[in-house]
Amino acid sequence: MAPDQKPNDRASIGIVGAGLVGCLAALAFSRKGYDVSIFDLRPDPKSVDRSKRNLRSINLAVSKRGIRAVEYVDETLSRKILDHVIPMKGRMIHDKTGLKQESQLYGLNGECINSIDRSYLNDLLLEELGKSGVKVYFEHKLIKLSNVDTDPTMEFATKDSIVKFDFEYIIGADGAHSHFRHQMQKGMRMDFSQKYIDMQYIELYIPPDPKKKFAIDANHLHIWPRHDYMLIALANEDGSFTSTFFSPWSVIESIKSSSEFTQFFKTSFPDAYKLIGKEALISVYDNNPRGPLMQISAYPYNSPLGKAIIIGDAAHSMVPFYGQGMNCGFEDVRILMELIEANESIERAFLAYSPQRKDDLDAICKLALDNYYEMSSKVTNIWYLTKKKLDYTLGSWFRNKWLPLYTMISFRDDIPYSRAVAIEERQSRILNNLQVGLVSSILIYGVVQGAKLYEKWRPR
Amino acid sequence: MAPDQKPNDRASIGIVGAGLVGCLAALAFSRKGYDVSIFDLRPDPKSVDRSKRNLRSINLAVSKRGIRAVEYVDETLSRKILDHVIPMKGRMIHDKTGLKQESQLYGLNGECINSIDRSYLNDLLLEELGKSGVKVYFEHKLIKLSNVDTDPTMEFATKDSIVKFDFEYIIGADGAHSHFRHQMQKGMRMDFSQKYIDMQYIELYIPPDPKKKFAIDANHLHIWPRHDYMLIALANEDGSFTSTFFSPWSVIESIKSSSEFTQFFKTSFPDAYKLIGKEALISVYDNNPRGPLMQISAYPYNSPLGKAIIIGDAAHSMVPFYGQGMNCGFEDVRILMELIEANESIERAFLAYSPQRKDDLDAICKLALDNYYEMSSKVTNIWYLTKKKLDYTLGSWFRNKWLPLYTMISFRDDIPYSRAVAIEERQSRILNNLQVGLVSSILIYGVVQGAKLYEKWRPR
Repeated sequence: MAPDQKPNDRASIGIVGAGLVGCLAALAFSRKGYDVSIFDLRPDPKSVDRSKRNLRSINLAVSKRGIRAVEYVDETLSRKILDHVIPMKGRMIHDKTGLKQESQLYGLNGECINSIDRSYLNDLLLEELGKSGVKVYFEHKLIKLSNVDTDPTMEFATKDSIVKFDFEYIIGADGAHSHFRHQMQKGMRMDFSQKYIDMQYIELYIPPDPKKKFAIDANHLHIWPRHDYMLIALANEDGSFTSTFFSPWSVIESIKSSSEFTQFFKTSFPDAYKLIGKEALISVYDNNPRGPLMQISAYPYNSPLGKAIIIGDAAHSMVPFYGQGMNCGFEDVRILMELIEANESIERAFLAYSPQRKDDLDAICKLALDNYYEMSSKVTNIWYLTKKKLDYTLGSWFRNKWLPLYTMISFRDDIPYSRAVAIEERQSRILNNLQVGLVSSILIYGVVQGAKLYEKWRPR
Repeated sequence: MAPDQKPNDRASIGIVGAGLVGCLAALAFSRKGYDVSIFDLRPDPKSVDRSKRNLRSINLAVSKRGIRAVEYVDETLSRKILDHVIPMKGRMIHDKTGLKQESQLYGLNGECINSIDRSYLNDLLLEELGKSGVKVYFEHKLIKLSNVDTDPTMEFATKDSIVKFDFEYIIGADGAHSHFRHQMQKGMRMDFSQKYIDMQYIELYIPPDPKKKFAIDANHLHIWPRHDYMLIALANEDGSFTSTFFSPWSVIESIKSSSEFTQFFKTSFPDAYKLIGKEALISVYDNNPRGPLMQISAYPYNSPLGKAIIIGDAAHSMVPFYGQGMNCGFEDVRILMELIEANESIERAFLAYSPQRKDDLDAICKLALDNYYEMSSKVTNIWYLTKKKLDYTLGSWFRNKWLPLYTMISFRDDIPYSRAVAIEERQSRILNNLQVGLVSSILIYGVVQGAKLYEKWRPR
């Protein structure tokens, strides 16, 4: 037991990973009166030079599920977050000439997703943890879990020693490459898969405009869809945009020099090329890492006797194309806490969580993958746009009876992901039947009219 | 570089894992003139008390693919192996009364698979390695791979120190829980999945018969199929049988004491109960571990520049129900060596291996899983048996034109697994059509005859 860990009447909770999901979980348990400790292998962000960050972040979009989870934990905190977001009401599609932009709204009634800076959000959560009495340990690298289901012990390597902590319950929220999960797997039968998609990403930066602050509309998620590859940009509070270039590995690997890279940008994204600037693009090519994208799934999330659990990316890492990674991780926390309330037992909640959550996590991971195709290609397809228009028209006619998928995922917090997919499948069948019905009617009408004409004019 | 590792004109090969596949690979490279070292974390089996083994082995069956691979490496060795096998020409199905046994032959022409003791085979391979100048290092636990694709270095923990070795090429053959693979994954994008099936196994033992040596027929693989669960037994040279009980976890977990366990055996497998003995069953229940069963797949098997590769269970761990795990791992070695010959380059061979081998490995892993259903249930189903009879009849009529799946997998070495599955699918469609055709003909004939009769006899 660590020196500052005192015996306590309240159950003790140890959380590994002080990222967004780990911090929210720590706050949630702390608010319920548990004795919470949280560990992270990284140094305290307050002590780190921000300019030295890894240039591999993709901007976050907070949507309804994320907000609901934060509100569940702390209403004031949710307001503090929403004060610093930039609402995005739709996608702004940039065409290949660099001259035309087209807005495609996300919601039926002006609903927005919200761009937010990951480090601002993480710092805010850490600050709240400090205030709420959670013990925060930085530079503690998890090296071992033992007695997971009897007397959970976590061993950490610090700069100069190995320290051990005992807890009643332990939670892994240490991201896609989770050590917690790896340690848990040694003692139980946990299915696991990691699958890379043939896609890399590079972070870029659009500076603030000296005159109008935002060089392009702040309240849209900007997309330069080019089928095989795409560029996106999300606004930051200071007027800049964080931009990300996604492409198959073969595309980036076929570009052999920074001058080829700038030429590629000039041809593919002429307006973005001007916004980012040639010098910046050269530096990006030379310095910024290419990040891989992968999906991770694991099952079950809990240890057999309900003493340990994994949440967030440690349990289900998804590709970023639906903007639901953090929202889903936050929802993990809310659902877990609600199960603890309902079951009046952490063990029973951990055991109930896995079967209840699995279909929803599988569903959102699949949607995230499918949405790359929508963002990079379908948004420029006339048939897709027509079908979407029909979908949204039905949505506004039959409010709450007909819900477009994007609305169910991003603007509702009460429809589980898997149910949203099931509803969408039903609606999609109806839309297809409508289209087939429409086309058939037109054809039949044409044939009948043609026959009448022939009857009237045929030579007798 | 380790003290005894000298600079050498021949390319140096480092292999991790001195199990069956690792040893065969080491021999194969050594026979081609390479400078080979092999490492294993276990102690030298010669130094270990055999009675302290882990009681978790399932007997092996060597079939055609395995034999071909050994012959490719060393014809004499293949004879040494075949001198110590017990051929099994079919399955012997034990019914629930314990009174009836039914033989179902495997091949069209008396072909056999061959029961062999894992430790005999492993010892034999290790002995050959010793003679052939391969450097064998026991109690070397791999802790790190570095510079995999430039200057591969492997770090091992021994009893009292950390040692490093450099090689030109490195091979991981360290089984389902491969550390080699885990290390390789850190430096490259390797898809990976592990999936447990809801099934456990327990090892049992049928002693030799004092009079007739083998208590039951030695030349069959004995099966006690009971749908949900099953018992199997394979003969050993000394007259004993190694037996394995497979069941869903819920079945074994519902048995709460050794007396319930013996009662369960008495009811489910009355003849096996007598052969194993009540005392032995009590000891099995109290002492023998329950093993989990899982499938592992990884892709690609090679490092991006072709300096490292994984083979055998490290790359594709399958459930034991087709008896192909070792055979497939041995085939990995043959195919790899043939690619090296054809490409005249190890790098090019490693790069070519992954895409060439993937479909076949996926196919056999799936077949292994499907075969549980066949062994535990279908072998007692009248329709299955009829279809199989038709399948085998066509096989003997149209020799080499019509091949039952089991024959293609176990008694042929020239049909890749994925091709065998494709051929089987085509044949299965034909069999179904034949059955439908037959039934239709009978029906039509009946209707026609009925109509004729009616015409003749109807009241006029």
